[in-house]
Amino acid sequence: MATFSRLIRFLAKDGNVYYGDALLSEGVSDIAQVTRARVIQGNIFGPHHVTDQVAEVKMLLAPLARNDIRTVRCLGLNYEQHAKESNLPSPKYPVLFYKPVTSVTGPFDDISVSSMAQASKGLDYECELVVVVGKEAKDVPESQALDYVLGYAVGNDVSHREWQLNLGGGQWGLGKGFDRWAPFGPGIVSSKLISDPNSLQISTKLNGQEVQSSSTKDMIFNVAKTVSFLSKGTTLLPGDLIFTGTQGSRTSRPQGVGMGRKPALWLNDGDLVEVSLEGVGSCLNRIVFDRPSSKL
Amino acid sequence: MATFSRLIRFLAKDGNVYYGDALLSEGVSDIAQVTRARVIQGNIFGPHHVTDQVAEVKMLLAPLARNDIRTVRCLGLNYEQHAKESNLPSPKYPVLFYKPVTSVTGPFDDISVSSMAQASKGLDYECELVVVVGKEAKDVPESQALDYVLGYAVGNDVSHREWQLNLGGGQWGLGKGFDRWAPFGPGIVSSKLISDPNSLQISTKLNGQEVQSSSTKDMIFNVAKTVSFLSKGTTLLPGDLIFTGTQGSRTSRPQGVGMGRKPALWLNDGDLVEVSLEGVGSCLNRIVFDRPSSKL
Repeated sequence: MATFSRLIRFLAKDGNVYYGDALLSEGVSDIAQVTRARVIQGNIFGPHHVTDQVAEVKMLLAPLARNDIRTVRCLGLNYEQHAKESNLPSPKYPVLFYKPVTSVTGPFDDISVSSMAQASKGLDYECELVVVVGKEAKDVPESQALDYVLGYAVGNDVSHREWQLNLGGGQWGLGKGFDRWAPFGPGIVSSKLISDPNSLQISTKLNGQEVQSSSTKDMIFNVAKTVSFLSKGTTLLPGDLIFTGTQGSRTSRPQGVGMGRKPALWLNDGDLVEVSLEGVGSCLNRIVFDRPSSKL
Repeated sequence: MATFSRLIRFLAKDGNVYYGDALLSEGVSDIAQVTRARVIQGNIFGPHHVTDQVAEVKMLLAPLARNDIRTVRCLGLNYEQHAKESNLPSPKYPVLFYKPVTSVTGPFDDISVSSMAQASKGLDYECELVVVVGKEAKDVPESQALDYVLGYAVGNDVSHREWQLNLGGGQWGLGKGFDRWAPFGPGIVSSKLISDPNSLQISTKLNGQEVQSSSTKDMIFNVAKTVSFLSKGTTLLPGDLIFTGTQGSRTSRPQGVGMGRKPALWLNDGDLVEVSLEGVGSCLNRIVFDRPSSKL
């Protein structure tokens, strides 16, 4: 379906913002290292084409503009180990929650932490495979589900455990939905290039130290099952994002989200969090606590 | 802020779809009865003006086009009686969940029920005051929150209790987010005309019989508190909708959502559900079960 191989959106050295098809040097697979791209003209979900115009990349932006993103869906408890560490049985059906579009941000943007989220501990990371829907999908059977996928990225489902699990009345959206709490990127690798999205290594580094490491093959509901299920009675639109959940901590190695550790490992002001997905690349975001405001 | 008094979106007898300012006959307050409107030109959240062109209304549509809506937020348990019937303490903070934009539909559209939602009982209604955000709002104090509201409508937060409460892993969005499960309208009454959104009668009729009746003054978190809270650390965008929750059943009269009744009262194929809000009007939607499909 896609005309591109690795879709990026970027500020170019010429001062313009473009969609582009990343031009990677030989042997480079991390889109974060891109320096040049072929400019794409047209509507990324409609008529468009990859031109011969090559632009120099100054800064990568979120791979889709906010107006090109409709609904951001996320799965919870989608890896066996994460369900276990939460002391919950593996779910019978995918567990769905949402983030607002304002949570989406670019692969190198700061993650802002408001005073409300600073008031208690619980700031956590989750590296996730992000599915980008490419065309309208409703009641799609599992066998055809991947045909509706534009491509894949990596994202961080930033979470505040106290607001997510306790203060939010049991509904997770509030504690995961603050501005810039869904960085994703660094680009979108076409599903042409990733025939099996459930065979990829995925990991998180906190200040350079690996803290999560897993494979998307450990998902309880793989990408095809997830897309098919979410399309039942619900139309998925081009530009919808699906964050597909994260792995837990009780693996053979002592790794996982901060919540599952003893003692818990919470993110702090200035921390650098890097999430990486095999064949796609990485997002590197700094945690930045908002300064106290007199407005509230 | 708004230039209109009662914003509608409609198919006109001339075959075009317009935004318009409803022209109501003397003594009529229900926008559902509109027959003529002044056409609005421009971007409803940007430069626009109400013209002198009067168009004949053939059919009212959802008051905002899908592309003009960004995020749909909903509150749960926001009336004392509804919290009690759910056997839950009144929440300390607003309980937030989301619906996808594809759930939004017009004031007289059918509510479609997919085979997944037909497989078990639990289809329910909830009449709710809907707040339409008019301009970007972040960290807005309660005292200024209503300045960010474009206007008000009435909506039905259609819910499937089995998917909402049991099969969805405790997260409510799935069982409330199917296509067309958020009808709203019939128009948006400017906040110029409604100085106190927490003094309005709100009710539901099922096949002509009143089944919910309350006042928005019974909200636990009123509109100003809700908008202020939701804007903390999260930017509300123009075109965001906020469904503000529904009243419960253990009032002095035996009324409320179907879940709270003994025996429970579930919606069926062909039922007509009408939700009404004082000064705004009503949405009347028919429940239509999808026919079995061979696609899944």
